[in-house]
Amino acid sequence: MKILAFAASLRKDSYNARLLSIAIDRAREAGATVDHAEFSEFDVPLYNGDLNASIGMPPGAQEFIRRIEAADGIMIASPEYNFSLPGTLKNLIDWVSRAKPVPLRGKSGVLLSASTSVIGGIRGLWQLRIPLEGLSVTLHPDMFALASAQQAFTEEWKLKDEALDGRLRDLVNAYVDMGKRLAKKD
Amino acid sequence: MKILAFAASLRKDSYNARLLSIAIDRAREAGATVDHAEFSEFDVPLYNGDLNASIGMPPGAQEFIRRIEAADGIMIASPEYNFSLPGTLKNLIDWVSRAKPVPLRGKSGVLLSASTSVIGGIRGLWQLRIPLEGLSVTLHPDMFALASAQQAFTEEWKLKDEALDGRLRDLVNAYVDMGKRLAKKD
Amino acid sequence: MKILAFAASLRKDSYNARLLSIAIDRAREAGATVDHAEFSEFDVPLYNGDLNASIGMPPGAQEFIRRIEAADGIMIASPEYNFSLPGTLKNLIDWVSRAKPVPLRGKSGVLLSASTSVIGGIRGLWQLRIPLEGLSVTLHPDMFALASAQQAFTEEWKLKDEALDGRLRDLVNAYVDMGKRLAKKD
Amino acid sequence: MKILAFAASLRKDSYNARLLSIAIDRAREAGATVDHAEFSEFDVPLYNGDLNASIGMPPGAQEFIRRIEAADGIMIASPEYNFSLPGTLKNLIDWVSRAKPVPLRGKSGVLLSASTSVIGGIRGLWQLRIPLEGLSVTLHPDMFALASAQQAFTEEWKLKDEALDGRLRDLVNAYVDMGKRLAKKD
Repeated sequence: MKILAFAASLRKDSYNARLLSIAIDRAREAGATVDHAEFSEFDVPLYNGDLNASIGMPPGAQEFIRRIEAADGIMIASPEYNFSLPGTLKNLIDWVSRAKPVPLRGKSGVLLSASTSVIGGIRGLWQLRIPLEGLSVTLHPDMFALASAQQAFTEEWKLKDEALDGRLRDLVNAYVDMGKRLAKKD
Repeated sequence: MKILAFAASLRKDSYNARLLSIAIDRAREAGATVDHAEFSEFDVPLYNGDLNASIGMPPGAQEFIRRIEAADGIMIASPEYNFSLPGTLKNLIDWVSRAKPVPLRGKSGVLLSASTSVIGGIRGLWQLRIPLEGLSVTLHPDMFALASAQQAFTEEWKLKDEALDGRLRDLVNAYVDMGKRLAKKD
Repeated sequence: MKILAFAASLRKDSYNARLLSIAIDRAREAGATVDHAEFSEFDVPLYNGDLNASIGMPPGAQEFIRRIEAADGIMIASPEYNFSLPGTLKNLIDWVSRAKPVPLRGKSGVLLSASTSVIGGIRGLWQLRIPLEGLSVTLHPDMFALASAQQAFTEEWKLKDEALDGRLRDLVNAYVDMGKRLAKKD
Repeated sequence: MKILAFAASLRKDSYNARLLSIAIDRAREAGATVDHAEFSEFDVPLYNGDLNASIGMPPGAQEFIRRIEAADGIMIASPEYNFSLPGTLKNLIDWVSRAKPVPLRGKSGVLLSASTSVIGGIRGLWQLRIPLEGLSVTLHPDMFALASAQQAFTEEWKLKDEALDGRLRDLVNAYVDMGKRLAKKD
């Protein structure tokens, strides 16, 4: 089972990128193959229907499509901006959704978020579910929202809190099991 | 009472732009002053925290801030993309929300959508409410979602259906009344 | 300006009831008249279209309608159940929405929540906005979500944290100002 | 693979009950075993934490728990009330969620809706996803929303529109395939 994984942040020292790295290690331990992408590899212009009609897919969207088509599932660590998903991530989804058939259709997925707030980005993930499920991604119902991210990591970028680390491991294990089942050819 | 109005589409022949034009006429008839903006005037790069730290606000966000600060309320006609708001519009909101105090705070607003589907963009507007209300915009509870937009307009870009046209007029009147009440200095 | 206020919990020692009491004091200090109702006064059976057709409105819904029609606005302190609004509160709304014209239409409102979780019920309030706004209630965009409610109160049921208490006061003041503006006859 | 199926309406001539019957036939054709329940079998009082503490689970919730524990998945045909899920259904979920471990956890599910509106209940289903996914039900991303239900059925309660009927069959087939994969013991 192969997972395309990326953190939906363009910041260099993104907490979401750190959280994602841990989750990727867990996914590999659970037997998954992971394609660890950078969000900047999927750089696209602001969506514009006229631009879409004239140039088709911009290179960053083509790259995303190529990578997701080669995968069975998707793992996204996404910040929450203004109680919702980042406009940047939605803009990428808007471009990709114009490809027919929609490349996300039939994939599985799991969502994570790191935030410096005490709530932890969970509201943003609920809003991110909507376009993904609308495009026929089967999302694991459980999500992982890391709160107070600025205090959550050791110097080696592990999670300090073992209970939290265990919960992340359990979720990734559960997702990889789900992803394998859904990906299996009969 | 002054309204900043724009259609959140970069397409030239946007149905949302046409719907917005009618709504702007109605708002002026109701006694409002309207600043009719083009979405392209608020062109911004993809949000990136590092970029924000190094350059501050990009010119398109500065322009939006200048225009919304001069207004009492906001009228947006927005397409629905993938069951949610456009990434482009969310990306603009994400930039603007980094200004302190948040320039949208305390403004009133009303939301419209045109769509070629039979449902008419209403799901996208519900998702658009979230970041706007989260940033303390008082939104009129009613929204206007024009379905089957490709058949809805006359050659002079009026609404063919008089009942629909009446409903749009009623909503805009109700919003202008609400906006005036909320804007009034005691 | 007159507010109908209730806590959407049937528990005797509800934290939402306690939070509501503080908010009601603040609203009265801000010059509002408050009708402090008990949720149990609006006791209704499970909604059933056939029952509605045969008996019309049950007494608890009639009582709610009578009380909201006499008010300009509504203040609800609601628990969050399962990431959404309580079924009990939604069931009351479902009954009331069958009266024509819908008695909530045109009222203003403000939402509060107390919760023993560290997040504080805010997700439930976002889901509560949907049916209320769908029924044309103009909601204040800001909401108050009290986290860790089991530790938040003094023995006299005041809020221990002065900053939180100040935020609640500011929100209630802002709502009463908004409610007065919207209620005023020209 | 065994599915617990019910229509979340207490009306006798519910369109959702009719739509559910067709979906159940399709699920059986696809090889699933279906436990076809009536919503009235899960009759519960309005949720009240004190009542829960004194009586535990009411009989209707116990019945639901017994039935869902014997199933691998759940199929719900639910009306939309006020842009959200029915309070009655949410109230049942609120009761059931108090059992530990939560009986819905780990089940799969699929959601349908019939409505006399031209939109078809899809907004209500999106709100229904939230508590179900929050309780760890893996929902099929696709949903089926039957619009204009009063004109949609033949006298034998089949769907008149063959394309729609085909879409329903495809969705149920896809769900049964998903449910089998997720239910399989290794």
